Amino acid sequence: MFQFKTFVRYSETDQMGVVYYANYFVYFEAARTQLLKKEGKSYGQFEKEGVYIPVLEAHCRYKSPLFYEDEITVNCWISEVKNTSFKFEYEILKDGKVAAQGFTRHCCTTKDLKPVKIPEDLRKIIDKYKR
Amino acid sequence: MFQFKTFVRYSETDQMGVVYYANYFVYFEAARTQLLKKEGKSYGQFEKEGVYIPVLEAHCRYKSPLFYEDEITVNCWISEVKNTSFKFEYEILKDGKVAAQGFTRHCCTTKDLKPVKIPEDLRKIIDKYKR
Amino acid sequence: MFQFKTFVRYSETDQMGVVYYANYFVYFEAARTQLLKKEGKSYGQFEKEGVYIPVLEAHCRYKSPLFYEDEITVNCWISEVKNTSFKFEYEILKDGKVAAQGFTRHCCTTKDLKPVKIPEDLRKIIDKYKR
Amino acid sequence: MFQFKTFVRYSETDQMGVVYYANYFVYFEAARTQLLKKEGKSYGQFEKEGVYIPVLEAHCRYKSPLFYEDEITVNCWISEVKNTSFKFEYEILKDGKVAAQGFTRHCCTTKDLKPVKIPEDLRKIIDKYKR
Repeated sequence: MFQFKTFVRYSETDQMGVVYYANYFVYFEAARTQLLKKEGKSYGQFEKEGVYIPVLEAHCRYKSPLFYEDEITVNCWISEVKNTSFKFEYEILKDGKVAAQGFTRHCCTTKDLKPVKIPEDLRKIIDKYKR
Repeated sequence: MFQFKTFVRYSETDQMGVVYYANYFVYFEAARTQLLKKEGKSYGQFEKEGVYIPVLEAHCRYKSPLFYEDEITVNCWISEVKNTSFKFEYEILKDGKVAAQGFTRHCCTTKDLKPVKIPEDLRKIIDKYKR
Repeated sequence: MFQFKTFVRYSETDQMGVVYYANYFVYFEAARTQLLKKEGKSYGQFEKEGVYIPVLEAHCRYKSPLFYEDEITVNCWISEVKNTSFKFEYEILKDGKVAAQGFTRHCCTTKDLKPVKIPEDLRKIIDKYKR
Repeated sequence: MFQFKTFVRYSETDQMGVVYYANYFVYFEAARTQLLKKEGKSYGQFEKEGVYIPVLEAHCRYKSPLFYEDEITVNCWISEVKNTSFKFEYEILKDGKVAAQGFTRHCCTTKDLKPVKIPEDLRKIIDKYKR
């Protein structure tokens, strides 16, 4: 499991005084791309080699709100690996409690968004973080 | 069913050249709040009366990408009404084809995010758009 | 002068209860790109022909706050045209009063951000909106 | 001078393949609020005590583009302190080179945005970072 730590920026709040709901997906993205980077092949490098990893589906369950300046940890791992798609799972923790849970399902494509097989080096990373 | 029309802003794209996935939830929010406004009671008025309508759960299925300057229509309606929660459903259409589908599940709360019953005027709007 | 009308989205507010300051630049961008589109050559088309129009400088003076659901008008025109750069000027109006003023200075470049002369069709648009 | 380090998120890029221009102001905000936090009084605490610090004016000069995954440093200090307003100055550095420069001018207000004198504890922080 990969852990990404960050803090809530003012720009991420809305007038309800909590993090705007769409921004949880930005935290998810930061976590999954930092995971790839840590494994030695950044998302940017995949793109340079012509491999794009678009999102097919995204989901979040909001359990308790996040506030400005909160220190949060995003736990991130892999589930449901198929031939052409796989899932990142996420948990956002604040003070050791789960504040939100979610997933994103992805496939691999060319720049023109035509599906391709998951490349070998990505598959290795997927296997490592599979739970 | 309510229809909200908008166009894709440059700020909403990412370096893949398509709309960044979290921004679909911004379109969803614009659609549901315009629905309330059209029904004579804007989301802002609910907040002024102490009724907040946070998101409990959000989901989106991405079918075909959206590009800069695309004219899109967000169809929006209600499903699964319970005592204290309800669901907005969405379809994003481009050139008459469904580019994405999603939902957001909500409850009603006080400013301190304590749950309250769905107020009568909101329930009327919910009933009108229930499918 | 070009007029772009829009309304404030919930996602654009912050916990101060007003529009987050960086989002004024998103309104500016929406206005200048709609201006180009109205003149028959969208920003996307310029990019497809290999002409990019990056921002060299951006400025905004905030006079009175914008709130959720405010209906706003962005006035947009051109000033200070030089050989390789030009300025868009903006005024954001709410209820007929100026809520903010700003400018963005631009040049034209290739995709690799190498400077090029302002193309003839862009120059015509610039001349039309010059004040 | 205060130094804030961060990295460019995918969500911050646009289809030109670089950081969207409005997001530089988000980096500026992250830097100035981290500065306050480091000095023992976070922006959130000022707000809880009824002191708001809105932006009166914002400016950025873009020198060289920022790309996805770039590690950046935002240098942040204070200039032009007046009775009721002051300026944060910023420099965004990448690989030791200045990629952008900017400032934000602020005043202090109540929640209703009525101007108030700069409180004593904020003035101490201002004096410490004055250049």
